[in-house]
Amino acid sequence: MLANSDLALRLFLQLALILTVGRLVGWLARLIQQPQVVGEMIAGILLGPSLFGWVWPAAQGWLFPGQSMSLLFGLSQVGVALYMFLVGVEFHTGLLVGRLRRAFSVSLAGTLVPLALGAGIGYGLARQPGLFGAKAHPNDAALFLGTALAITAFPVLARIIQTRGLAGTPLGTLVLAAGAVSDGAAWCVLAVVLATLDHSWLLAAKAIGGAGAYAALVLTLGPKVFGRLNRQAERGGGVSQPILATTLLLVLLGAWFTDAIGIHPVLGAFLLGAAMPRGVLSRELLRLLEPVTVVLLLPLFFVYSGLNTRLDLVNTPTLWSITVLLLAAACVGKGGACWLAARFHGEEPRAALAVGTLMNARGLMELIIANIGLQRAIIQPPMFSMLVTMAIVTTLLATPAFEWVYGTRARRAGLLGPAV
Amino acid sequence: MLANSDLALRLFLQLALILTVGRLVGWLARLIQQPQVVGEMIAGILLGPSLFGWVWPAAQGWLFPGQSMSLLFGLSQVGVALYMFLVGVEFHTGLLVGRLRRAFSVSLAGTLVPLALGAGIGYGLARQPGLFGAKAHPNDAALFLGTALAITAFPVLARIIQTRGLAGTPLGTLVLAAGAVSDGAAWCVLAVVLATLDHSWLLAAKAIGGAGAYAALVLTLGPKVFGRLNRQAERGGGVSQPILATTLLLVLLGAWFTDAIGIHPVLGAFLLGAAMPRGVLSRELLRLLEPVTVVLLLPLFFVYSGLNTRLDLVNTPTLWSITVLLLAAACVGKGGACWLAARFHGEEPRAALAVGTLMNARGLMELIIANIGLQRAIIQPPMFSMLVTMAIVTTLLATPAFEWVYGTRARRAGLLGPAV
Repeated sequence: MLANSDLALRLFLQLALILTVGRLVGWLARLIQQPQVVGEMIAGILLGPSLFGWVWPAAQGWLFPGQSMSLLFGLSQVGVALYMFLVGVEFHTGLLVGRLRRAFSVSLAGTLVPLALGAGIGYGLARQPGLFGAKAHPNDAALFLGTALAITAFPVLARIIQTRGLAGTPLGTLVLAAGAVSDGAAWCVLAVVLATLDHSWLLAAKAIGGAGAYAALVLTLGPKVFGRLNRQAERGGGVSQPILATTLLLVLLGAWFTDAIGIHPVLGAFLLGAAMPRGVLSRELLRLLEPVTVVLLLPLFFVYSGLNTRLDLVNTPTLWSITVLLLAAACVGKGGACWLAARFHGEEPRAALAVGTLMNARGLMELIIANIGLQRAIIQPPMFSMLVTMAIVTTLLATPAFEWVYGTRARRAGLLGPAV
Repeated sequence: MLANSDLALRLFLQLALILTVGRLVGWLARLIQQPQVVGEMIAGILLGPSLFGWVWPAAQGWLFPGQSMSLLFGLSQVGVALYMFLVGVEFHTGLLVGRLRRAFSVSLAGTLVPLALGAGIGYGLARQPGLFGAKAHPNDAALFLGTALAITAFPVLARIIQTRGLAGTPLGTLVLAAGAVSDGAAWCVLAVVLATLDHSWLLAAKAIGGAGAYAALVLTLGPKVFGRLNRQAERGGGVSQPILATTLLLVLLGAWFTDAIGIHPVLGAFLLGAAMPRGVLSRELLRLLEPVTVVLLLPLFFVYSGLNTRLDLVNTPTLWSITVLLLAAACVGKGGACWLAARFHGEEPRAALAVGTLMNARGLMELIIANIGLQRAIIQPPMFSMLVTMAIVTTLLATPAFEWVYGTRARRAGLLGPAV
């Protein structure tokens, strides 16, 4: 047993190492035109049993003792909840207006097709040893894998579009809107999976009823409460300590409530952020909270995921085949369906391909879902490692694929900014 | 054993409660013209065994289970290190110039007299049961208690002076400079206590040599490194993510190093902050890090202290007498000595009294020292509770005493702003 003071000492070192490796690999990622988030996902894996723990198990075990996992987990949950709150704050529902039908169509195709594909594969693999939890019903396995294939990395997508200077363009708007609708739908399916997981009607009713009540409360009262805080911020010329404290309190309570009813903290935090009207408050909160969240807290989540990722567990031809199958199903099901839907609505071939490519990036969202699955014992470590691989590969593909299908002309037209 | 997910769930609720009670009691404190920090120190005690745990032990034990203490401790250490870094960043060594002799004289008196008084009392009480750790030599007890009496709440003092609009006045400059020198001296004594605590020359040499090397490194290289980051921030028009990451990394490493050699993380963090030249970087870092640190992380430290404070342990006439004796020695030794020194240097009676009153506030610094003492087993819980009481009472006294001796005339002259 380590004393609290030893754990605190270790925490300083853990945070320092996580920061360093995250920034370093993130910087390498940016050198090859990849977003920082790809580097940080990989950094997490490097610090886990897949590399650091494999090369030097004693040092890895000393630096990340089992006892410190609860600390890292708690901190990473706070970090990811804060981050999803900020994603919610940045989330422009206004973008949907005008392009609603096309966006809806693309997102519907990009949700239903991978959902069906994933569910089919999930049913087929449900009894395969080592993939799904012993207590997970084949229905759970199917719906969970469907969600894992259907999810879109909305924040990554938003960042690529923003940094490429496409934020106001028809293409950018379409992809953002479709990504948002698609993500919303996937999270709803996940909420149902989580709610029905214990096959207890009481728990399911608590989860679904609680989530409905929470959504209703946040979407009706949220804009009013935040509107009031926003006017206070306007009068005071910024976010004062009481305003910041109130906002953080609401995020913590929202995360706690959606966690306590059996959904997930990120859903509560995201919804709360989405309920915030645009203004001084939302702008200042982003400016104030995003740097620390992105630089210090979010890497903890990547590393916590990486510490649970054991690529060495995916070690048989069967498991390799399943990994390839899942990756192919993810790319074809999501990217292909979005491409077709966009073509159907008259987007030109290049733009339709770009839509499919971007919608296919799963990034952080896939990690969140994989962690939920592992934590709730829906999946087992080998499947977790496959999903982490899927998260990284689909995100890695997005930028170069997008550059390839859309880049040359767009760069010539001066539309594309530098890679970030 | 609670699962990680239960601990994370509990963490959301703990943070929410700590935020709420801290702000609420802080707001009540401001109503009676006290600084927010007084309210938060009291809020910490209210959430601990002295009130919440006494009224409703089951709920308190459920909300703050023993297992979550390591998490709260780790987070509170990161919080207090970040805070002390920011205190260092705000620390104007330039203020010393011109008033050096007077400030030095006041701070010398305000350090040596309480140090001697505390050391004398410490020697006398060293064998009294329940006050000092079994392994603490009377010399340790004496030096530790001396430090506890000699410390000044430099941040509280700076805040009072700033919010009363005295920042540029001769009085404000004198008190700030004297407080800084006095605090620096007290921390040096504490470093020696900590270094020699284990009566091992090797450990003491490691601590003293390490601290000297760290101070030399930080004070020579720090301004250069931060100067470079500052120029980058100037060119980029603000603190970019890489700059923020580098700064946080340095703070974490500094805190880790001074902790690992046996001194304390706050010393490493503070020194690093003090080595930062004024500029875009220091201004932007304060703007970016101070709100979250003060609103979310620092209250954790107060609550962690409060959870260890058991006022019910101070329950015999002897212990009550000792508490009163310590309080009197603290106020007379520190306040009285500073007042005399200021008078000796020709300050008018009212200003001299104000100097003594402000220098006597111990606030957060006393809590930090008390926690170090408890963690290193120099003191036992009843003495810890006495020192927490001393922290609160001397800080509570500062504002009204200052108002009383200096307020009427100053308010008439329009020098005093509203109480914060």
